[in-house]
Amino acid sequence: MKAVVPMTNRPRVLIIGGGFGGITLAKALRKSPFQVVMIDRNNYHTFQPLLYQVATGGLEPDSIAFPLRKIFANQDNFIFRMAEVEGVDTKNQTVSTSIGEIKYNYLVLATGSSTNFFGMKEVENASLGMKTIPEALDLRSLILQNFEQALQTASGELKDILLKFVIVGGGPTGVETAGALAELKRHVLPNDYPELDLRQMEIHLIEAGNQLLAGMSQQSSDDAKKALEKLGVHVWLDTMVTDYDGNSIKTNIGHDFESSTIIWAAGVKGNVVNGIEEEYITRGNRMLVNEFNQVNGFDNVFAIGDLALMKTEAYPNGHPQVAQGAIQMGANLAANLNRMRKGRELKTFSYRDKGSMATIGRNKAVVDLKNVHFKGFIAWLTWMFVHLLFLVGFRNKAVVLLNWVWSYFTYDKGTRLIIRPFKKREAEESAILV
Amino acid sequence: MKAVVPMTNRPRVLIIGGGFGGITLAKALRKSPFQVVMIDRNNYHTFQPLLYQVATGGLEPDSIAFPLRKIFANQDNFIFRMAEVEGVDTKNQTVSTSIGEIKYNYLVLATGSSTNFFGMKEVENASLGMKTIPEALDLRSLILQNFEQALQTASGELKDILLKFVIVGGGPTGVETAGALAELKRHVLPNDYPELDLRQMEIHLIEAGNQLLAGMSQQSSDDAKKALEKLGVHVWLDTMVTDYDGNSIKTNIGHDFESSTIIWAAGVKGNVVNGIEEEYITRGNRMLVNEFNQVNGFDNVFAIGDLALMKTEAYPNGHPQVAQGAIQMGANLAANLNRMRKGRELKTFSYRDKGSMATIGRNKAVVDLKNVHFKGFIAWLTWMFVHLLFLVGFRNKAVVLLNWVWSYFTYDKGTRLIIRPFKKREAEESAILV
Repeated sequence: MKAVVPMTNRPRVLIIGGGFGGITLAKALRKSPFQVVMIDRNNYHTFQPLLYQVATGGLEPDSIAFPLRKIFANQDNFIFRMAEVEGVDTKNQTVSTSIGEIKYNYLVLATGSSTNFFGMKEVENASLGMKTIPEALDLRSLILQNFEQALQTASGELKDILLKFVIVGGGPTGVETAGALAELKRHVLPNDYPELDLRQMEIHLIEAGNQLLAGMSQQSSDDAKKALEKLGVHVWLDTMVTDYDGNSIKTNIGHDFESSTIIWAAGVKGNVVNGIEEEYITRGNRMLVNEFNQVNGFDNVFAIGDLALMKTEAYPNGHPQVAQGAIQMGANLAANLNRMRKGRELKTFSYRDKGSMATIGRNKAVVDLKNVHFKGFIAWLTWMFVHLLFLVGFRNKAVVLLNWVWSYFTYDKGTRLIIRPFKKREAEESAILV
Repeated sequence: MKAVVPMTNRPRVLIIGGGFGGITLAKALRKSPFQVVMIDRNNYHTFQPLLYQVATGGLEPDSIAFPLRKIFANQDNFIFRMAEVEGVDTKNQTVSTSIGEIKYNYLVLATGSSTNFFGMKEVENASLGMKTIPEALDLRSLILQNFEQALQTASGELKDILLKFVIVGGGPTGVETAGALAELKRHVLPNDYPELDLRQMEIHLIEAGNQLLAGMSQQSSDDAKKALEKLGVHVWLDTMVTDYDGNSIKTNIGHDFESSTIIWAAGVKGNVVNGIEEEYITRGNRMLVNEFNQVNGFDNVFAIGDLALMKTEAYPNGHPQVAQGAIQMGANLAANLNRMRKGRELKTFSYRDKGSMATIGRNKAVVDLKNVHFKGFIAWLTWMFVHLLFLVGFRNKAVVLLNWVWSYFTYDKGTRLIIRPFKKREAEESAILV
């Protein structure tokens, strides 16, 4: 058996994860003296901010995924391997993977985050997350399957359960998903299901805190809430999901939600890898790093992006887990790796907040920049422009833009296809259907 | 439990299958006095002629699928149900399905065809067909997985097996798939896999008859063969696959092909439904129909499209199993159902051959019209134009055109994504990997 990745006489930077952090770092090392090795379980980069549009029939999955090999097709010092990480051995500087062991000189953990159910197993079994393309496709299938099934029942109660969509988490993903579902309800589903009374479809957005879009301005939060409510979404603030009993979602306010579709966008946890001592793993499963993104305790092991938690004066609980954090950390780390190699002093990471935004629906979005916030049509155009800008690949940008323009003029969502029907876990299925 | 489909006082035409035949028929019955009920296992229509481009990374699945409900969104007398057919009871005029029983006054079987392995179970287990979107996606994943795996082996033999692609069947699907793979080999894969010697990738096209594209002119067959060979495809005529022994494909010419990827496009069989007497099922699993598409023996049971076998003077073995056959039969049947209702004489079906065509690669196609055949750039443009014309939906046409224009100028295929890795059946996997 040959080596999993052939060694060269260049020192090796091994990057785990092809998200925003990983690809920014690898690209920036293009002209460096390193051999750059990236592993990812998928052969593509996922543009996570648009997953909700895949889930709600607005975009095809292929337009928000981009082949990782293609990104680096002309980068001579880059090698990609599709593999699952099994563990890290920091002593021997080796990562064990599904395809064998890979040595490193510098290790960068850029594994991102996944849905956090905060230990509620019952909720996890009953919910769908939205962090990967297969998850978004499962959700797309399930939404449509619910409607097909609702046609087949005379029971008003079962129909209610099937047509009630509960989104937990009032961050951008929750808000955007709720808005997209509300537009489906208003413009698309009545044409598809003339036999159903769409007033029976309910969309509930549950947020544990006292505002939507925490982290954005109070005005944007209020605007988003107002816009969602105008679209018919039921917004529940200060409401915490406590359990799922096989039939309904229990909350701390005493109100239960009977629903077969729980979309969980209430939090993320870092995708830690085996072999890193627990003392470096902190709240939200994030890895504690110093101001150079070094995992505390190691010179040559780094974490960037959603996984990394760097405590600074401005961000005592870590930076926001958004694309910009990963991109900026990736860029700074590339510079620092080059500095290290030359024996120069490392540069402290400093996060530049470029603002934040969320869209609610057509002509409706909120944008916060440093001292300005705006909403409505201009905000919505800004949101689209920025998302197209960061979407990888010209073909993808063109296909997404085409879909958006088409949807704008037709009020339609073109990709409401059940390509692989979603099968619920056994236990839950029987609970819902009996 | 309410009725699966509410009855009205209109006589009901129940159409099983939302392919070309089914949708042409249902559309043509728009202003008829019938209630039109369609069932399909999927909620979308599949444009099968472009499945091979999904499989070879050229198109997203969503651009060749179209929601069936959307096609009929404004047709008041139309009802759709997503369901699997379990059986037909012609005596009680009832179809039993996965969602319950559906009554009919007129039954139209438009279930199309699926891959025919001619009873060779071992071959079936080892092969991938290309008749549905999930099959095309599985093939796309497998092709890419083979390349990822080939990087991980030092064994030249295993590498050969992984990089040898055997396409069985020299009809349009086989020819087009072989051409698309050859273009991947030439323009795309060398950039993605600089570590592999792409000369090791072999594409074999095996045809039992003595020409490719049987049914087209001798000149087109010869042109296609020459064009494929120029692209590096190994074409084997007069070669019949006889068995698969777990390691290699056996043929009647004594030459075996060791390959882990067998793409089976060697034939189709009608998707017959349970409950129709065997005497009406004839060669290729097709249902014998009279000149009005009535299943012989029934006044009110019809078969159209790939499933139907109508013996005529011009086509003693039935019409070609292509989109045009289904479309024309669907249209004629719609007219006849209206005639029946009015007690008028039925109109004999007559097939109008609009010509046939196949594409081999960029600027390369062959087209046969009645007395003309042409090839090259003009043929290729014609092929694209006709395919766009019959593709359902403006959004889909636009996305497909965009992909084609982009691919033409970049020599790239944008969607080489392993979204759901393909898992081979256990038995075969171990055979290949040990």
